[in-house]
Amino acid sequence: MNEKLSFACDYAKGAHPDILQRIIQTNMMKTAGYGLDEISESARNRIRKACECESAAVEFLTGGTQTNAVMIDALLRSYQGVIAAETGHISVHEAGAIEANGHKVLTVPHQYGKISAGDVERYLDNYYNDANHEHMVMPGMVYLSHPSEYGTLYSKAELQAFREVCDRFGIYLYVDGARLAYALACPENDVRLKDLAELCDAFYIGGTKCGALFGEAVVVPEPKKIPHLFTIIKQHGALLAKGRLLGIQFDELFRNDLYMQIGGPAIKAAADIKKALREKGYRLCFGSPTNQIFVVMENEALKILGEKVEYSFWEKYDDNHTVIRLATDWGTTESETIALINIL
Amino acid sequence: MNEKLSFACDYAKGAHPDILQRIIQTNMMKTAGYGLDEISESARNRIRKACECESAAVEFLTGGTQTNAVMIDALLRSYQGVIAAETGHISVHEAGAIEANGHKVLTVPHQYGKISAGDVERYLDNYYNDANHEHMVMPGMVYLSHPSEYGTLYSKAELQAFREVCDRFGIYLYVDGARLAYALACPENDVRLKDLAELCDAFYIGGTKCGALFGEAVVVPEPKKIPHLFTIIKQHGALLAKGRLLGIQFDELFRNDLYMQIGGPAIKAAADIKKALREKGYRLCFGSPTNQIFVVMENEALKILGEKVEYSFWEKYDDNHTVIRLATDWGTTESETIALINIL
Amino acid sequence: MNEKLSFACDYAKGAHPDILQRIIQTNMMKTAGYGLDEISESARNRIRKACECESAAVEFLTGGTQTNAVMIDALLRSYQGVIAAETGHISVHEAGAIEANGHKVLTVPHQYGKISAGDVERYLDNYYNDANHEHMVMPGMVYLSHPSEYGTLYSKAELQAFREVCDRFGIYLYVDGARLAYALACPENDVRLKDLAELCDAFYIGGTKCGALFGEAVVVPEPKKIPHLFTIIKQHGALLAKGRLLGIQFDELFRNDLYMQIGGPAIKAAADIKKALREKGYRLCFGSPTNQIFVVMENEALKILGEKVEYSFWEKYDDNHTVIRLATDWGTTESETIALINIL
Amino acid sequence: MNEKLSFACDYAKGAHPDILQRIIQTNMMKTAGYGLDEISESARNRIRKACECESAAVEFLTGGTQTNAVMIDALLRSYQGVIAAETGHISVHEAGAIEANGHKVLTVPHQYGKISAGDVERYLDNYYNDANHEHMVMPGMVYLSHPSEYGTLYSKAELQAFREVCDRFGIYLYVDGARLAYALACPENDVRLKDLAELCDAFYIGGTKCGALFGEAVVVPEPKKIPHLFTIIKQHGALLAKGRLLGIQFDELFRNDLYMQIGGPAIKAAADIKKALREKGYRLCFGSPTNQIFVVMENEALKILGEKVEYSFWEKYDDNHTVIRLATDWGTTESETIALINIL
Repeated sequence: MNEKLSFACDYAKGAHPDILQRIIQTNMMKTAGYGLDEISESARNRIRKACECESAAVEFLTGGTQTNAVMIDALLRSYQGVIAAETGHISVHEAGAIEANGHKVLTVPHQYGKISAGDVERYLDNYYNDANHEHMVMPGMVYLSHPSEYGTLYSKAELQAFREVCDRFGIYLYVDGARLAYALACPENDVRLKDLAELCDAFYIGGTKCGALFGEAVVVPEPKKIPHLFTIIKQHGALLAKGRLLGIQFDELFRNDLYMQIGGPAIKAAADIKKALREKGYRLCFGSPTNQIFVVMENEALKILGEKVEYSFWEKYDDNHTVIRLATDWGTTESETIALINIL
Repeated sequence: MNEKLSFACDYAKGAHPDILQRIIQTNMMKTAGYGLDEISESARNRIRKACECESAAVEFLTGGTQTNAVMIDALLRSYQGVIAAETGHISVHEAGAIEANGHKVLTVPHQYGKISAGDVERYLDNYYNDANHEHMVMPGMVYLSHPSEYGTLYSKAELQAFREVCDRFGIYLYVDGARLAYALACPENDVRLKDLAELCDAFYIGGTKCGALFGEAVVVPEPKKIPHLFTIIKQHGALLAKGRLLGIQFDELFRNDLYMQIGGPAIKAAADIKKALREKGYRLCFGSPTNQIFVVMENEALKILGEKVEYSFWEKYDDNHTVIRLATDWGTTESETIALINIL
Repeated sequence: MNEKLSFACDYAKGAHPDILQRIIQTNMMKTAGYGLDEISESARNRIRKACECESAAVEFLTGGTQTNAVMIDALLRSYQGVIAAETGHISVHEAGAIEANGHKVLTVPHQYGKISAGDVERYLDNYYNDANHEHMVMPGMVYLSHPSEYGTLYSKAELQAFREVCDRFGIYLYVDGARLAYALACPENDVRLKDLAELCDAFYIGGTKCGALFGEAVVVPEPKKIPHLFTIIKQHGALLAKGRLLGIQFDELFRNDLYMQIGGPAIKAAADIKKALREKGYRLCFGSPTNQIFVVMENEALKILGEKVEYSFWEKYDDNHTVIRLATDWGTTESETIALINIL
Repeated sequence: MNEKLSFACDYAKGAHPDILQRIIQTNMMKTAGYGLDEISESARNRIRKACECESAAVEFLTGGTQTNAVMIDALLRSYQGVIAAETGHISVHEAGAIEANGHKVLTVPHQYGKISAGDVERYLDNYYNDANHEHMVMPGMVYLSHPSEYGTLYSKAELQAFREVCDRFGIYLYVDGARLAYALACPENDVRLKDLAELCDAFYIGGTKCGALFGEAVVVPEPKKIPHLFTIIKQHGALLAKGRLLGIQFDELFRNDLYMQIGGPAIKAAADIKKALREKGYRLCFGSPTNQIFVVMENEALKILGEKVEYSFWEKYDDNHTVIRLATDWGTTESETIALINIL
């Protein structure tokens, strides 16, 4: 249906073949609903094992905005807000889903999509030093995305610094892992699932953009921090009747470490494309080691590119140039990459 | 995994084979996200045609509670409530999803899951006649489920009576069609999709319980009644990134009128089981013409049944008897039905 | 402006003269805002002393619906609901203020405005015994009004029974004391402020209907149960800039035990009126020992009464009779009472 | 109680003597509740007349945050946000009251507390030009404060420019007039009540900071824009039982044009203080023509000042200097002003 090369986003295809196969195999099985089935339980256990956190609660939801909205509402008290990058997905592109549950998104400046523990600490110090802070929204957690919306990565040391700030102020740390597989497959990344389980109060392992048809797996290392999470999910309209569909997908993603490797082709393709772009004299906007590439294009050249390649408009650069985003994914093939490079 | 006969619910299996086949075929297609793809558009057009309502807005969501929460919030003003049966799904089994958006569920008495236009009219008359009604929640819509949670059906004449009451008071009529396919396949039913499109301000065509892996199709016959529905869906965390998955399923469900027939096996099986139950001297609680059967069981007999058959506990009848629910579905086979009858 | 005898409600007049005098005296004082002034602190201490609970948090709000909305939201988690009488103020006459904060009001049947600990226990047992209870709204507290909306009173023993049920299920007990002064002045009442402080997780001492211009005093015996209450109040738009106005009124109400006695004239007047009604052959609907009288009137007689007396319509009794409510208040004079009796 | 000179805020005293006198006179009157009394109706009519807008709806609320929260929720649809200065009261100092109702505050940069119609237009153009704008919060109104939180004033021409932008995009314009009396008494101001009624969809006339004990008067020039405002107010816990208290205060404030003049002493005092500050070589931070003065103080000098004068800390200027705010009010006397000047 679409004959152009597609580098517009990382959710344009269906599922990894292994996942599809498992859905086919299990189709006529009759199981309990709402994720209470055995496959979902198996998936939970595999995720617990991959996180080296046997006691974690694991729940499956259908999408990223939904997961953020549910988990932020689950972790915060009704009067608290969440600190996030001004470019964070929850700050900009969730149509106010966080505020719809009554929570203000408290923004701090970003650098290429990342925020710093120092800036967050300053924000919190300023808040508590302000004589009127009881008239202001109390920060109750920090939201990070890893990789960030700009494809950049936090280091383990940076996450540890966030953990220390959060501990100092008694607030939660939550990581949005919508594209986590692309971090895990990236040589520059030193943050493993085990680290997230140790450092975060909750995080989610993205499926939708990482090989699943849909679905995100929430991990709560210390379940007592969120009692009644099942009911909270239901209250938000986020409980899937045939919950096993999520279980099946994550059971496959965590069978034989598939999730650790599934991002590999995307990282390889992105590296090849970035190398080609540099060689051809294009300007990359900033270093972004995962599956998203941000490049400055001359407007006339972009028009020609657009006839053969689907890309995302990112922002205007100047009157003659535009920043575009090219995204690879788990299913990007070498021939697609070569075809793109030849066009560039 | 489950060797008992399964009559516990109508969402225990995966998808109708045609749907599964289409998911397989389209898996590696690259399409636009969020339901903006061509397959979703085709599905919308097929639904519009089936409803004989070319101008309708059609949106796809993932589950019933989510759909009710989104649509009720979309139709009501922030200070309005929704009138429903005290047994309505939104009244009891959605964990407060309606209230989470600020709307009170205003209950009226039911008879076997159904409410009457007369009772609703009395409720509204009482409201407007009450000198203090401006201190009370203003009713803004009526919620019906067809079939009801008790498997019973509204007649077209009954729906017309609701429409008249709603028009008299200037409020909306919304129908939850989670199990709509079982109504459409039922000889006793005289409510067609076209009637719903003519009588309702919005309704949804259930997929999850009617042959899809998951998904519900919302129909808004006059789209101008809900501007910005896309954003509202996103705000509720209900926008599926790979929206085509919903489009694919409904495109199949509405190809060659599959949705009109898919409930047939369930209705046939339920009729056979009810006949057998009557012949064997069981007491059916009330007439329920669709795919749910409510039967009084002697507790000792129930224990034996439970060893071979999965059923749902409905309610205690007396110290020695229990009401159970048996549910058939689109995939119930004749051999399963015979096996069940032989056990009864 | 109003020459009829006024028995329509207990908030038709301004303030008790002592309160008005104190407002006049303090008018040009310059104090800190938001209740951080010395008079508010004095009022808090007097209330703590009257409750024999030195460690209680005491906050002042402006009205009853506001206080209920703030406190219920402060005590509940976002997914919890509140159990109340189906006739409770929060159930009927607060325009959905509780639901506006996302909390469902879970109703139990009443008897003359009161609910029973036994019914609440049954409700909770049924909830936890229901296999689907995680799909239902989790009850997080019990709401009582003392006196009730029907003027009836709970006994201390009844409150203790509620406390036991709440403790058994780990939920909160909250008492709405909008008309508490009329209970405290009533011979039939055995519930003292000290008892409320011992038995409730939070309660409020009504000012608006009990001699103040406006204002309610919230008491939280164990403040750690509601951290950041100040911010919660602000978030709900319920923080009065010149908070001292509330402090001044409650400082007067709790100076020399005024609050314990202020309801006296209302109770005396109501007793006289009830005696006269009985002697004249009227039918009282039920025993209501406080300042509200519910009496069945013949419709023709009511028309004549209405020319000289303001009353509240309560409900239709039959085609020829109506139930009306007569309310006395802290300022009802003996001459008003005699005048009313002469008219009856 | 407080022997220091008080220039910390404009809500430290009680009410203007005329208002207090009227409260005393009317104290034992018996009137209808909830603002349905004759005095409130008289106040409404006087405000309509002062605004030269006979058809306006006028409602009385108790405080500024409450009024903003109610009116923004009343005007917006559930998925819309409000554009405001990043320094706006609703952005910073209302503890998330706007988000508590589900609405995001969308901030634009300020200059001395003011935003520009041009910046708002750019924000809206960017929003509608963004391919993903349906994933973002839809702006539904513009919030201005006049005077601003920095004491600065919009000109009538500036308000007209906002009106044009709002009309172009079909969104509302709302003005927070918490300190409106100080604008009306200010020679630099050319915005009259009539202009606000012509240019705004809703605005409020501040009482709390302008001579009332408490209270704000909301004006909705075209009432049909907000049906059921009474119920909305009740739903937000913002309906005062003895509503006449608000009516009484505004009836006095709008008798003989008191409200037009009541800010006069504050403006005179502020002008005298600013003149003295300049003469004594202090640096004023920016021109602020109303009752708030922002001045840079040397830290050592500030310590000495603080022994005799109450002021507000505004922000750190540098290591040796601090910006403070001095606020005059309707009751500031010439002797207080002289005393302050002598200390400076």
